[in-house]
Amino acid sequence: MTISEFELIRRYFANSEFQFSRSGVELGIGDDGALLKIPADRLLVMSMDVLVESIHFPQQADPRLIAQRSLAVNLSDMAAMAAEPLCFTLGLTLPEANEKWLAEFSAGLLQMARQHNCPLVGGDTSRGPLQIAIQVQGLVASDKVLRRSGARPGDSIYVSGHLGDGAIALLCMNLPSALGEEFAMEQQILSESDRSHFLAAYYQPEPRLELAQALAGLATSGIDISDGLAGDLGHILKASAVGAVLQLEKLPFSDAAMHSLSASNRQLAALFGGDDYELCVTVPPALSAQAEAAASAVGVPFTRIGEIVEGSGIRCVNPQGKLQDFHREAFQHFR
Amino acid sequence: MTISEFELIRRYFANSEFQFSRSGVELGIGDDGALLKIPADRLLVMSMDVLVESIHFPQQADPRLIAQRSLAVNLSDMAAMAAEPLCFTLGLTLPEANEKWLAEFSAGLLQMARQHNCPLVGGDTSRGPLQIAIQVQGLVASDKVLRRSGARPGDSIYVSGHLGDGAIALLCMNLPSALGEEFAMEQQILSESDRSHFLAAYYQPEPRLELAQALAGLATSGIDISDGLAGDLGHILKASAVGAVLQLEKLPFSDAAMHSLSASNRQLAALFGGDDYELCVTVPPALSAQAEAAASAVGVPFTRIGEIVEGSGIRCVNPQGKLQDFHREAFQHFR
Repeated sequence: MTISEFELIRRYFANSEFQFSRSGVELGIGDDGALLKIPADRLLVMSMDVLVESIHFPQQADPRLIAQRSLAVNLSDMAAMAAEPLCFTLGLTLPEANEKWLAEFSAGLLQMARQHNCPLVGGDTSRGPLQIAIQVQGLVASDKVLRRSGARPGDSIYVSGHLGDGAIALLCMNLPSALGEEFAMEQQILSESDRSHFLAAYYQPEPRLELAQALAGLATSGIDISDGLAGDLGHILKASAVGAVLQLEKLPFSDAAMHSLSASNRQLAALFGGDDYELCVTVPPALSAQAEAAASAVGVPFTRIGEIVEGSGIRCVNPQGKLQDFHREAFQHFR
Repeated sequence: MTISEFELIRRYFANSEFQFSRSGVELGIGDDGALLKIPADRLLVMSMDVLVESIHFPQQADPRLIAQRSLAVNLSDMAAMAAEPLCFTLGLTLPEANEKWLAEFSAGLLQMARQHNCPLVGGDTSRGPLQIAIQVQGLVASDKVLRRSGARPGDSIYVSGHLGDGAIALLCMNLPSALGEEFAMEQQILSESDRSHFLAAYYQPEPRLELAQALAGLATSGIDISDGLAGDLGHILKASAVGAVLQLEKLPFSDAAMHSLSASNRQLAALFGGDDYELCVTVPPALSAQAEAAASAVGVPFTRIGEIVEGSGIRCVNPQGKLQDFHREAFQHFR
């Protein structure tokens, strides 16, 4: 591949479509750096995620979907901070300058960028194994930031949407799963529509930006579920110096997950699977009704799954309220 | 590699040494995003570069040097905008969690980060082919930004330091060079000290941050020379809608380059080689003496190599002022 080919790629992303006007972006692609003007009453939020071929998506995956997932997982971090997306940068390495691939990848990226009013303002391209590094910048008022550290005993624990679909998608795609051999699906009974559901959940997670904005000021802490509920809720507990009691039977699952996996594997996917990009937040009892109404107003399922308690770590209880020793080994291994 | 190993890597970079206190950084590693407070009288500057094994550094390269180069090339972009470094993010993919490699890489990174008061505030790590994506954030007053677009006919063209050493280093390391077969060195006459000089120029380029600050308000345009003088000066010319006359005999070379290459190959390296991370700036005649004094005060070689003219493109002249048709084919190929 010659330098000129990479010059072509740069031009591909430097076109005006990607650089649509956005208040706060003073200068996008075209100089040695992008220039942002941050309003005096806002903090800048930044988050970077890297997606690697054969790890985060299979070889030969649809470039449009790779692009959408790459941006969506970063936007999910903005939601987890209750921030509004501002702009993003792209570090793209490609084994060759394949024009068809680039056309589809950039179309997928542009669609997601426009949808969230988040223009591309810079980055880098190079020859190399296929990887996508994206950093999203966002804005948030300092008194509206959703941190991990604000959970208090008595707060209710809520999650948005459904859990576990991302981890089940890995099974569908034969990508590496950390859930062990017992985590399996009865492939023969997976319908096309269930399969489509899992792949969409994986490639096109909906960043919960609107929900996060609606909860700002109500939730005491929040995180997005990228590594599995146990790990991510664990981050809240550690940062807030509290514990949690989870009601396993309350974990929300999609119809597709209900069809495809045993109850035990569904819980494994939700707790330790990751790739769900749903929000987990804590809300004081006095504000729970208001938070539930806010979630309902933006049309996002919002399920109370447990409670913050004094202490540390996660305890799981069954419907009768008895302590449940769920997958002790998995807990040991992953925590 | 298990998830736990990557958790270890994250902890490696999330330690307090990397997160030293820096005014403007409200929150570093440890939540879903970093939080920055940007002073009302400053713009935020952002630049991202990706370094790929076997493309930007050889396999088995010293991890300390890889780290230093990765951060230095991004800091060079801050210099090219006359910005002050604020903080950086790191996207690191590694084939395996090699503790020795990580210890050396992070030591090199930390040294460069401290030197420029630029803490690590976030990022991502994953298993994958070795790649380093770094985004640096910086601050600049809006009336001090060094853009590519301000060059005017009559301005003098200056470059800092020496040119071509980066491209010569690629030869030393047998990395891909875009300069063709005629670009070669007489290896048998390369001394150890010259070799060390080229490798240091490549791995440890000095971001010209202090010089850029000193020139802010004097220079009308600026860029860092990452792709070769012809291409990078070309960006200034295009953005400013002007042309340039270059005096080839004025191009500044290191002693090592003088020892190791023919005059023609030295010029090839300077014009088309890249990887020099020196500044190229334009200065109006009335401010030239002041700019030269400012460069001298910060101890950086600063050489007048030509003049901005009406028109477009670069013309090269010989010491007698005659138009010189330098490497026409290379010009055709690379421009």
